Amino acid sequence: MNQEIERKFLLKQLPPHFEQLRGAPIEQGYLAIEPNGNQVRLRKKGETFSLTAKRGEGLVRDEHEIELTPAQFAALWPLTAGRRLTKQRYETPYAGRTIEIDVYGGINSGLVVAEVEFDSELAAREFVPPDWFAEDVSERPEYSNRNLARE
Amino acid sequence: MNQEIERKFLLKQLPPHFEQLRGAPIEQGYLAIEPNGNQVRLRKKGETFSLTAKRGEGLVRDEHEIELTPAQFAALWPLTAGRRLTKQRYETPYAGRTIEIDVYGGINSGLVVAEVEFDSELAAREFVPPDWFAEDVSERPEYSNRNLARE
Repeated sequence: MNQEIERKFLLKQLPPHFEQLRGAPIEQGYLAIEPNGNQVRLRKKGETFSLTAKRGEGLVRDEHEIELTPAQFAALWPLTAGRRLTKQRYETPYAGRTIEIDVYGGINSGLVVAEVEFDSELAAREFVPPDWFAEDVSERPEYSNRNLARE
Repeated sequence: MNQEIERKFLLKQLPPHFEQLRGAPIEQGYLAIEPNGNQVRLRKKGETFSLTAKRGEGLVRDEHEIELTPAQFAALWPLTAGRRLTKQRYETPYAGRTIEIDVYGGINSGLVVAEVEFDSELAAREFVPPDWFAEDVSERPEYSNRNLARE
Protein backbone atom coordinates (compact mmCIF):
# COMPACT_ATOMS: atom_id res chain seq x y z
CA MET A 1 0.00 0.00 0.00
CA ASN A 2 1.23 3.45 -0.87
CA GLN A 3 0.48 6.80 0.58
CA GLU A 4 -0.55 9.57 -1.71
CA ILE A 5 0.60 12.97 -0.46
CA GLU A 6 -0.42 15.61 -2.92
CA ARG A 7 -1.13 19.31 -3.20
CA LYS A 8 -3.30 20.90 -5.85
CA PHE A 9 -3.23 24.49 -7.12
CA LEU A 10 -4.99 26.73 -9.54
CA LEU A 11 -2.76 28.61 -11.97
CA LYS A 12 -2.17 32.30 -12.65
CA GLN A 13 -0.87 31.35 -16.04
CA LEU A 14 0.53 28.37 -17.90
CA PRO A 15 4.23 27.68 -17.22
CA PRO A 16 7.01 28.88 -19.51
CA HIS A 17 7.45 26.66 -22.55
CA PHE A 18 4.05 25.05 -22.00
CA GLU A 19 3.57 24.89 -25.77
CA GLN A 20 6.56 22.54 -25.97
CA LEU A 21 5.05 20.00 -23.57
CA ARG A 22 3.25 16.98 -24.90
CA GLY A 23 -0.02 16.11 -23.20
CA ALA A 24 -1.34 12.63 -22.57
CA PRO A 25 -5.11 12.17 -22.88
CA ILE A 26 -6.75 10.82 -19.72
CA GLU A 27 -10.26 9.44 -19.43
CA GLN A 28 -11.35 8.41 -15.98
CA GLY A 29 -14.51 7.28 -14.29
CA TYR A 30 -15.55 6.17 -10.83
CA LEU A 31 -17.03 2.80 -9.87
CA ALA A 32 -17.83 3.91 -6.34
CA ILE A 33 -17.30 7.08 -4.33
CA GLU A 34 -17.98 7.12 -0.60
CA PRO A 35 -18.79 10.34 1.24
CA ASN A 36 -15.71 9.72 3.47
CA GLY A 37 -13.40 9.73 0.47
CA ASN A 38 -12.96 6.01 -0.26
CA GLN A 39 -13.15 5.56 -3.99
CA VAL A 40 -12.38 3.24 -6.86
CA ARG A 41 -11.33 4.85 -10.12
CA LEU A 42 -10.77 3.49 -13.61
CA ARG A 43 -8.35 5.38 -15.84
CA LYS A 44 -7.18 5.19 -19.42
CA LYS A 45 -4.03 7.23 -19.95
CA GLY A 46 -2.82 6.95 -23.52
CA GLU A 47 -2.95 3.19 -24.04
CA THR A 48 -2.47 2.26 -20.39
CA PHE A 49 -5.45 1.05 -18.34
CA SER A 50 -5.53 1.10 -14.57
CA LEU A 51 -7.72 0.77 -11.50
CA THR A 52 -6.90 2.78 -8.39
CA ALA A 53 -8.42 2.37 -4.94
CA LYS A 54 -8.03 5.22 -2.46
CA ARG A 55 -8.92 5.34 1.19
CA GLY A 56 -9.49 8.39 3.36
CA GLU A 57 -9.32 12.01 2.29
CA GLY A 58 -7.26 15.18 2.64
CA LEU A 59 -3.55 15.69 2.14
CA VAL A 60 -2.43 12.11 2.92
CA ARG A 61 -4.34 9.11 1.59
CA ASP A 62 -3.74 5.39 1.28
CA GLU A 63 -3.96 4.26 -2.28
CA HIS A 64 -3.02 1.45 -4.57
CA GLU A 65 -3.10 1.22 -8.33
CA ILE A 66 -3.07 -1.85 -10.50
CA GLU A 67 -2.69 -2.02 -14.24
CA LEU A 68 -5.63 -3.62 -16.04
CA THR A 69 -5.75 -5.42 -19.34
CA PRO A 70 -7.86 -3.69 -22.02
CA ALA A 71 -10.46 -6.45 -21.59
CA GLN A 72 -10.68 -6.00 -17.82
CA PHE A 73 -11.06 -2.24 -18.32
CA ALA A 74 -13.72 -2.65 -20.99
CA ALA A 75 -15.76 -4.94 -18.74
CA LEU A 76 -15.89 -2.46 -15.85
CA TRP A 77 -16.05 0.87 -17.73
CA PRO A 78 -19.85 0.84 -18.41
CA LEU A 79 -20.45 0.97 -14.64
CA THR A 80 -18.83 4.45 -14.50
CA ALA A 81 -21.49 6.07 -16.74
CA GLY A 82 -22.40 9.55 -15.47
CA ARG A 83 -19.21 9.75 -13.38
CA ARG A 84 -16.53 10.38 -15.95
CA LEU A 85 -14.18 13.18 -16.90
CA THR A 86 -11.52 13.83 -19.51
CA LYS A 87 -8.35 15.86 -19.30
CA GLN A 88 -4.98 16.29 -20.93
CA ARG A 89 -2.04 15.81 -18.60
CA TYR A 90 1.21 17.69 -19.09
CA GLU A 91 4.29 17.19 -16.92
CA THR A 92 7.05 19.67 -16.24
CA PRO A 93 10.03 19.46 -13.85
CA TYR A 94 10.34 22.00 -11.05
CA ALA A 95 12.87 22.10 -8.20
CA GLY A 96 13.58 18.38 -8.34
CA ARG A 97 9.88 17.47 -8.54
CA THR A 98 7.36 16.89 -11.29
CA ILE A 99 4.44 19.25 -11.67
CA GLU A 100 1.43 17.68 -13.36
CA ILE A 101 -0.79 20.13 -15.20
CA ASP A 102 -4.30 18.90 -15.94
CA VAL A 103 -6.27 20.71 -18.64
CA TYR A 104 -9.86 19.53 -18.30
CA GLY A 105 -12.20 18.83 -21.19
CA GLY A 106 -15.92 18.30 -21.67
CA ILE A 107 -18.17 20.13 -19.21
CA ASN A 108 -15.09 21.10 -17.17
CA SER A 109 -13.45 22.90 -20.12
CA GLY A 110 -11.62 26.01 -18.97
CA LEU A 111 -10.43 24.44 -15.72
CA VAL A 112 -6.67 23.96 -15.38
CA VAL A 113 -5.04 22.69 -12.17
CA ALA A 114 -1.54 21.68 -11.18
CA GLU A 115 -0.71 18.81 -8.84
CA VAL A 116 2.51 18.01 -7.05
CA GLU A 117 3.22 14.73 -5.23
CA PHE A 118 5.47 14.43 -2.20
CA ASP A 119 7.06 11.62 -0.26
CA SER A 120 6.32 13.15 3.15
CA GLU A 121 3.83 15.50 4.75
CA LEU A 122 6.71 17.73 5.77
CA ALA A 123 7.89 18.06 2.19
CA ALA A 124 4.33 18.84 1.13
CA ARG A 125 3.94 21.59 3.72
CA GLU A 126 7.36 23.12 2.98
CA PHE A 127 6.84 23.21 -0.78
CA VAL A 128 7.38 26.67 -2.26
CA PRO A 129 5.28 26.94 -5.39
CA PRO A 130 6.52 28.60 -8.57
CA ASP A 131 5.25 32.11 -9.27
CA TRP A 132 2.84 30.90 -11.98
CA PHE A 133 0.82 28.98 -9.33
CA ALA A 134 -2.25 30.61 -7.80
CA GLU A 135 -4.43 29.45 -4.90
CA ASP A 136 -3.88 26.11 -3.12
CA VAL A 137 -7.12 24.12 -3.57
CA SER A 138 -5.95 20.82 -2.00
CA GLU A 139 -8.76 20.90 0.54
CA ARG A 140 -11.48 22.28 -1.76
CA PRO A 141 -13.85 19.45 -2.62
CA GLU A 142 -15.20 21.27 -5.69
CA TYR A 143 -11.80 20.71 -7.32
CA SER A 144 -11.60 17.01 -6.47
CA ASN A 145 -11.72 14.79 -9.51
CA ARG A 146 -14.53 12.76 -8.02
CA ASN A 147 -16.70 15.88 -7.94
CA LEU A 148 -15.63 16.95 -11.43
CA ALA A 149 -16.61 13.55 -12.85
CA ARG A 150 -20.15 14.27 -14.02
CA GLU A 151 -20.36 13.02 -17.60
CA MET B 1 -22.81 -5.30 -18.19
CA ASN B 2 -24.93 -7.89 -16.47
CA GLN B 3 -27.95 -7.60 -14.30
CA GLU B 4 -27.95 -9.37 -11.00
CA ILE B 5 -31.44 -10.51 -9.99
CA GLU B 6 -31.26 -12.32 -6.73
CA ARG B 7 -33.34 -13.31 -3.72
CA LYS B 8 -31.96 -14.13 -0.30
CA PHE B 9 -33.55 -16.22 2.43
CA LEU B 10 -32.90 -17.38 5.95
CA LEU B 11 -33.20 -21.13 6.53
CA LYS B 12 -35.42 -23.22 8.77
CA GLN B 13 -32.89 -25.99 8.46
CA LEU B 14 -30.08 -27.13 6.22
CA PRO B 15 -31.20 -28.94 3.06
CA PRO B 16 -31.35 -32.73 2.79
CA HIS B 17 -27.94 -34.25 2.10
CA PHE B 18 -26.17 -31.04 3.14
CA GLU B 19 -23.38 -33.13 4.69
CA GLN B 20 -22.57 -34.46 1.21
CA LEU B 21 -22.01 -31.01 -0.28
CA ARG B 22 -18.51 -29.64 -0.58
CA GLY B 23 -18.06 -26.01 0.44
CA ALA B 24 -15.73 -23.49 -1.18
CA PRO B 25 -14.06 -21.00 1.18
CA ILE B 26 -14.80 -17.37 0.29
CA GLU B 27 -12.99 -14.34 1.65
CA GLN B 28 -14.29 -11.01 0.50
CA GLY B 29 -13.68 -7.38 1.27
CA TYR B 30 -14.95 -4.03 0.04
CA LEU B 31 -12.86 -1.25 -1.51
CA ALA B 32 -15.73 1.22 -1.47
CA ILE B 33 -19.39 1.09 -0.46
CA GLU B 34 -21.73 3.96 -1.28
CA PRO B 35 -24.89 4.61 0.71
CA ASN B 36 -26.91 4.20 -2.53
CA GLY B 37 -25.59 0.68 -3.04
CA ASN B 38 -22.72 1.18 -5.50
CA GLN B 39 -19.87 -0.98 -4.36
CA VAL B 40 -16.62 -2.58 -5.40
CA ARG B 41 -15.83 -5.97 -3.91
CA LEU B 42 -12.73 -8.15 -3.94
CA ARG B 43 -13.24 -11.88 -3.55
CA LYS B 44 -11.06 -14.95 -3.20
CA LYS B 45 -13.06 -18.13 -3.79
CA GLY B 46 -10.84 -21.17 -3.57
CA GLU B 47 -7.90 -20.13 -5.74
CA THR B 48 -9.88 -17.74 -7.94
CA PHE B 49 -9.54 -13.99 -7.46
CA SER B 50 -12.08 -11.49 -8.68
CA LEU B 51 -13.26 -7.89 -8.51
CA THR B 52 -16.96 -7.10 -8.83
CA ALA B 53 -18.52 -3.68 -9.28
CA LYS B 54 -22.23 -3.32 -8.54
CA ARG B 55 -24.49 -0.37 -9.15
CA GLY B 56 -27.83 0.37 -7.53
CA GLU B 57 -29.62 -1.68 -4.92
CA GLY B 58 -32.60 -3.93 -4.34
CA LEU B 59 -33.75 -6.93 -6.32
CA VAL B 60 -32.20 -5.95 -9.67
CA ARG B 61 -28.69 -4.50 -9.90
CA ASP B 62 -26.17 -3.83 -12.63
CA GLU B 63 -22.95 -5.61 -11.98
CA HIS B 64 -19.80 -6.76 -13.65
CA GLU B 65 -17.11 -9.09 -12.43
CA ILE B 66 -13.57 -9.48 -13.71
CA GLU B 67 -11.06 -12.12 -12.77
CA LEU B 68 -7.88 -10.75 -11.19
CA THR B 69 -4.40 -12.21 -11.12
CA PRO B 70 -3.13 -13.13 -7.64
CA ALA B 71 -0.76 -10.14 -7.85
CA GLN B 72 -3.55 -7.69 -8.72
CA PHE B 73 -5.61 -9.04 -5.84
CA ALA B 74 -2.72 -8.86 -3.38
CA ALA B 75 -2.07 -5.22 -4.31
CA LEU B 76 -5.65 -4.10 -3.60
CA TRP B 77 -6.60 -6.37 -0.67
CA PRO B 78 -4.94 -4.25 2.09
CA LEU B 79 -7.38 -1.43 1.26
CA THR B 80 -10.31 -3.62 2.40
CA ALA B 81 -9.09 -3.85 6.03
CA GLY B 82 -12.02 -3.60 8.46
CA ARG B 83 -14.53 -4.46 5.71
CA ARG B 84 -14.04 -8.16 5.24
CA LEU B 85 -16.01 -11.33 5.82
CA THR B 86 -15.50 -15.04 5.39
CA LYS B 87 -17.98 -17.74 4.51
CA GLN B 88 -18.21 -21.24 3.11
CA ARG B 89 -20.35 -21.55 0.02
CA TYR B 90 -22.29 -24.70 -0.81
CA GLU B 91 -24.35 -25.20 -3.94
CA THR B 92 -27.32 -27.46 -4.42
CA PRO B 93 -29.70 -27.86 -7.37
CA TYR B 94 -33.39 -27.10 -6.90
CA ALA B 95 -36.16 -26.97 -9.52
CA GLY B 96 -33.77 -26.29 -12.39
CA ARG B 97 -31.89 -23.61 -10.45
CA THR B 98 -28.87 -23.49 -8.18
CA ILE B 99 -29.31 -22.60 -4.54
CA GLU B 100 -26.19 -21.12 -2.95
CA ILE B 101 -25.93 -21.64 0.79
CA ASP B 102 -23.51 -19.35 2.60
CA VAL B 103 -22.33 -20.39 6.05
CA TYR B 104 -20.67 -17.34 7.56
CA GLY B 105 -17.53 -17.40 9.70
CA GLY B 106 -15.71 -15.02 12.02
CA ILE B 107 -17.92 -12.53 13.85
CA ASN B 108 -20.89 -13.61 11.71
CA SER B 109 -20.62 -17.26 12.81
CA GLY B 110 -24.05 -18.81 13.21
CA LEU B 111 -25.55 -16.97 10.26
CA VAL B 112 -26.59 -19.11 7.29
CA VAL B 113 -28.38 -17.70 4.24
CA ALA B 114 -29.46 -19.06 0.88
CA GLU B 115 -29.35 -17.11 -2.37
CA VAL B 116 -30.99 -17.83 -5.68
CA GLU B 117 -30.22 -16.00 -8.93
CA PHE B 118 -32.75 -15.42 -11.69
CA ASP B 119 -32.65 -14.25 -15.27
CA SER B 120 -35.75 -12.07 -14.98
CA GLU B 121 -37.65 -10.16 -12.33
CA LEU B 122 -40.72 -12.20 -13.14
CA ALA B 123 -38.89 -15.46 -12.48
CA ALA B 124 -37.61 -14.01 -9.20
CA ARG B 125 -41.09 -13.01 -8.07
CA GLU B 126 -42.66 -16.31 -9.08
CA PHE B 127 -40.03 -18.45 -7.38
CA VAL B 128 -41.53 -20.97 -4.96
CA PRO B 129 -38.96 -21.68 -2.26
CA PRO B 130 -38.32 -25.17 -0.89
CA ASP B 131 -39.82 -25.97 2.51
CA TRP B 132 -36.45 -25.70 4.27
CA PHE B 133 -36.32 -21.96 3.44
CA ALA B 134 -37.52 -19.44 6.02
CA GLU B 135 -38.02 -15.66 5.71
CA ASP B 136 -37.12 -13.72 2.54
CA VAL B 137 -34.49 -11.16 3.56
CA SER B 138 -33.68 -9.80 0.08
CA GLU B 139 -34.59 -6.26 1.12
CA ARG B 140 -33.17 -6.38 4.65
CA PRO B 141 -29.94 -4.39 4.69
CA GLU B 142 -28.69 -6.10 7.85
CA TYR B 143 -28.25 -9.26 5.78
CA SER B 144 -26.39 -7.58 2.94
CA ASN B 145 -22.81 -8.71 2.64
CA ARG B 146 -21.59 -5.15 2.67
CA ASN B 147 -23.09 -4.71 6.13
CA LEU B 148 -21.81 -8.08 7.34
CA ALA B 149 -18.24 -7.18 6.28
CA ARG B 150 -16.89 -5.79 9.53
CA GLU B 151 -13.55 -7.55 10.11
